Amino acid sequence: MTRILKVAALGTAIAAAAFGFAHAAESKPEDVLKFRQGIMQAIKVNFGPIGAVVKGEAPYSEDTANRAANLAALAKIAPQTYAKGTETIPNSKTKGDAWTKPEFAARFEAFQIETAKLAQVAKANDAEALKAQFGAVAKTCKGCHDNFKEE
Amino acid sequence: MTRILKVAALGTAIAAAAFGFAHAAESKPEDVLKFRQGIMQAIKVNFGPIGAVVKGEAPYSEDTANRAANLAALAKIAPQTYAKGTETIPNSKTKGDAWTKPEFAARFEAFQIETAKLAQVAKANDAEALKAQFGAVAKTCKGCHDNFKEE
Repeated sequence: MTRILKVAALGTAIAAAAFGFAHAAESKPEDVLKFRQGIMQAIKVNFGPIGAVVKGEAPYSEDTANRAANLAALAKIAPQTYAKGTETIPNSKTKGDAWTKPEFAARFEAFQIETAKLAQVAKANDAEALKAQFGAVAKTCKGCHDNFKEE
Repeated sequence: MTRILKVAALGTAIAAAAFGFAHAAESKPEDVLKFRQGIMQAIKVNFGPIGAVVKGEAPYSEDTANRAANLAALAKIAPQTYAKGTETIPNSKTKGDAWTKPEFAARFEAFQIETAKLAQVAKANDAEALKAQFGAVAKTCKGCHDNFKEE
């Protein structure tokens, strides 16, 4: 096993153990979907205004730091909404084979790591650092949506 | 000013300063509403399964502790979705005069305090303590919904 694969496997194991993938879904499927959509909605609504600051369309403010902290908190919750047992929820846009791919859990771990960094970076008004870290977060979103979300 | 009023005023000041009420809403009204509904949805979906454990309809598990931690995290975010400037969002079920009542902010503070306690209590399988603290959280939800949410 190469080092990269080992790290990936470790990451997946950590994600599964610590981030909720291993939790049984005790809610009704429609409630799990609502949970998932609610958290994703909240993520989207916090992500957008940080992007506006990065693009220079809005000024940096306390709101930027606040939204970055929200993203980090929401990222901790997000994988729980994809717990084992939620592979076949009607009307979900998540591809059914996502749960069979170790990368799926690893992506959530990356999302958590990068949003935690963003929450730190966004405490200061440093346009360059914010742009770089915002990009790192966006990459984790895109990586997962491209592979595991139906259009 | 009586002691109770002073405490209430202090609580409101703390809530306004620390919990996001003072933040300007930089998002479009419809996005703020989505944010609010997303967070409330997530709260509801985490609250229910803890209630099932309290009622004895489901066994205590790691999931219970997890959901209680989620509630505490979501409670920190919730008041931001009611930031100043969001008093008149179309299709919102929040009563328009809520923002004029000091109790509105105070209720969110109580919600945060009680969910933080619940997150602590739910780490152990103590049915009596869980029931009591779940009740305390439920009271903060009800207090706010009864007064500030349209039916």
